[in-house]
Amino acid sequence: MPQILDGKAVAAALSEKLRAQASELKNHDVTPGLATVRVGERGDDIAYERGATKRCQSVGIDVKSFVLPQETTQAQLLDLIGRINADSSIHGCLIFMPLPKHIDENAVRAALAPEKDVDGITIGSQAGVYAGKPMGFPPCTPQACMEILSHYGIDLTGKNAVVFGRSLVVGKPAAMMLLGRNATVTVCHTKTREAHRIASQAEVLIVAAGRPGVVNRDFLNPDQIVIDVGINVNAEGKLCGDVNWDDAQTVKAVTPVPGGVGSVTTTVLAKHVVEAAQRTLQLEGN
Amino acid sequence: MPQILDGKAVAAALSEKLRAQASELKNHDVTPGLATVRVGERGDDIAYERGATKRCQSVGIDVKSFVLPQETTQAQLLDLIGRINADSSIHGCLIFMPLPKHIDENAVRAALAPEKDVDGITIGSQAGVYAGKPMGFPPCTPQACMEILSHYGIDLTGKNAVVFGRSLVVGKPAAMMLLGRNATVTVCHTKTREAHRIASQAEVLIVAAGRPGVVNRDFLNPDQIVIDVGINVNAEGKLCGDVNWDDAQTVKAVTPVPGGVGSVTTTVLAKHVVEAAQRTLQLEGN
Repeated sequence: MPQILDGKAVAAALSEKLRAQASELKNHDVTPGLATVRVGERGDDIAYERGATKRCQSVGIDVKSFVLPQETTQAQLLDLIGRINADSSIHGCLIFMPLPKHIDENAVRAALAPEKDVDGITIGSQAGVYAGKPMGFPPCTPQACMEILSHYGIDLTGKNAVVFGRSLVVGKPAAMMLLGRNATVTVCHTKTREAHRIASQAEVLIVAAGRPGVVNRDFLNPDQIVIDVGINVNAEGKLCGDVNWDDAQTVKAVTPVPGGVGSVTTTVLAKHVVEAAQRTLQLEGN
Repeated sequence: MPQILDGKAVAAALSEKLRAQASELKNHDVTPGLATVRVGERGDDIAYERGATKRCQSVGIDVKSFVLPQETTQAQLLDLIGRINADSSIHGCLIFMPLPKHIDENAVRAALAPEKDVDGITIGSQAGVYAGKPMGFPPCTPQACMEILSHYGIDLTGKNAVVFGRSLVVGKPAAMMLLGRNATVTVCHTKTREAHRIASQAEVLIVAAGRPGVVNRDFLNPDQIVIDVGINVNAEGKLCGDVNWDDAQTVKAVTPVPGGVGSVTTTVLAKHVVEAAQRTLQLEGN
């Protein structure tokens, strides 16, 4: 039986730290502030917004929720982002994507101040995660993977890490963060040949393939730490990951789905907001 | 005996294409223009500037050379970059790095317009190569590696590619470009364990370790294509790569040093200038 890498435990421990940091910020008359920006009424967005708001408030972050109707124009949205950029009580801004089709997402990404980009959507944040510099923030999901590894004391130096997926929201940033922690990193994807052979040699395997159960026993080994980023609905209507759960019973440690990476993302969002507030204080201090 | 991947042949073929493209641009009243900016009189810079100028002029690019004294202030340099940004006859700008210590390199990187950043030094270019989008340009050296692979018709789809080095000037951008060409990519570095074992499984090996001869027979296999980015001076005062040349006689194909990657970089610079000029024309066309 593998060790279960419990996302809720990671989130609880991280929240505890954030509460202390937010409290310390208040000693300097700074209350960390998050703005959420949602266009339309998509159920997924509303659910995530609710979870993120609750989590952020629980650690001492002020949350301002901006909800715009589906027919909002690009100019109206850009105007709102401009006001958020200018508002010194707001340190981080989460914009729900995808936006309605009549809005140019690239223009929206370009409009947000990178220092408030707590979910890694701007060019500044992309360059930051690529260069390994504290410029903007990485997307919350790959950062959640790193928080889990840190929480369980898993040192990555010199480890062979394999990432499945090369998207800008998970695969590429995860690869960059693993490199930053001195892992030897291999990125696999849909064009990879003999993926099972490559994966089975990994000491740390991060799976963001987006296909339920695609990682089976052929990809695994008994000394492996497996982080499953996938969130899928299986034939029985239940949530499941990209890793076959029965086959994963042979590995050293694994994140469950649900209760793994997905349980940490809103806490990472809160962490980024607190860090964004801390950075403004450091700037003032200079 | 391996096939020699001849940098001069690649440069010659690419120059031929660029000459035609520059000529086509002139039909639209556009002459591609490069500005070189050098602070001080470092020998390496002067030599590269001379080579780059000659290569660019040979394909039909106008080159304006700006040479500032070592004691130039940051304000003076930023003022020059501002004028280059505003000059529509200049499509690309090459700034020699490192700059003197009294100048903040990050401020200089931030000042250059990303669309004129033909050597990949700006945040915009970094985000572009990371995201695989035509925003700014990648650094010339990793692009030179890709040009060599293209010239010799080496398809990367599904191939196992290993990159030695994780710098922002070679290792990371090379890894991103290989991913963009659908290779499965592993990044090794100084903290990698059993690097020889990982390297020896590679079908394509790009070495930017910066240590002469560090890649020996243990890293190689007879079916391998090896791109050696290293330029070192050996004990006898001769130029040599990071790959042991005698040991490399067993592989399928290899770039020599000198005469390999280093022979293609100035032509890649010229390619980026021509492409920057083409992009301005496309913008006008919209």
